[in-house]
Amino acid sequence: MIKVNEYFDGQVKSLAYRSEAGKSTVGVIEAGDFEFGTSEHEIMTIVEGELEVLLPGAQEWQSFGQGQKFEVPANASFKVKSKGQTAYLCQYR
Amino acid sequence: MIKVNEYFDGQVKSLAYRSEAGKSTVGVIEAGDFEFGTSEHEIMTIVEGELEVLLPGAQEWQSFGQGQKFEVPANASFKVKSKGQTAYLCQYR
Repeated sequence: MIKVNEYFDGQVKSLAYRSEAGKSTVGVIEAGDFEFGTSEHEIMTIVEGELEVLLPGAQEWQSFGQGQKFEVPANASFKVKSKGQTAYLCQYR
Repeated sequence: MIKVNEYFDGQVKSLAYRSEAGKSTVGVIEAGDFEFGTSEHEIMTIVEGELEVLLPGAQEWQSFGQGQKFEVPANASFKVKSKGQTAYLCQYR
């Protein structure tokens, strides 16, 4: 089954599925500022678009574009700024 | 707005958005055999998983894995076989 998730009043939507390597989601983030919490370790890859990201414990924002990835530990939170609609892959590994 | 689309009784779901370069969707295809029709030129990229694809007019199936892409002209149809749940990016360019 492909599960549709919505967050932030529909400003973030994702499709949850399972690959051979484990659980994943593909999703889209609207333009805006968001803070996400993790319950598991996440590998986030930008599929299309660009995100400014403030990783847990970081002082400086970093920019990630198409094909670039960043990792977030479990039980942490990170902030993103999306200029436009940004598509991402999130792998729980 | 991020539009949720469902096809084949929910066996294919996608999220429609717009990037700087044009319209796109990210989606997930369940395991199974599907035939898709195009109304516009599409660039399909495998985000995670693997698809066997029979392109329009082709005699032989081709395999596409993570990061690989294929193009389909407008007003054509193509067949896919998905072994597991496969995530894709579709760019209308």
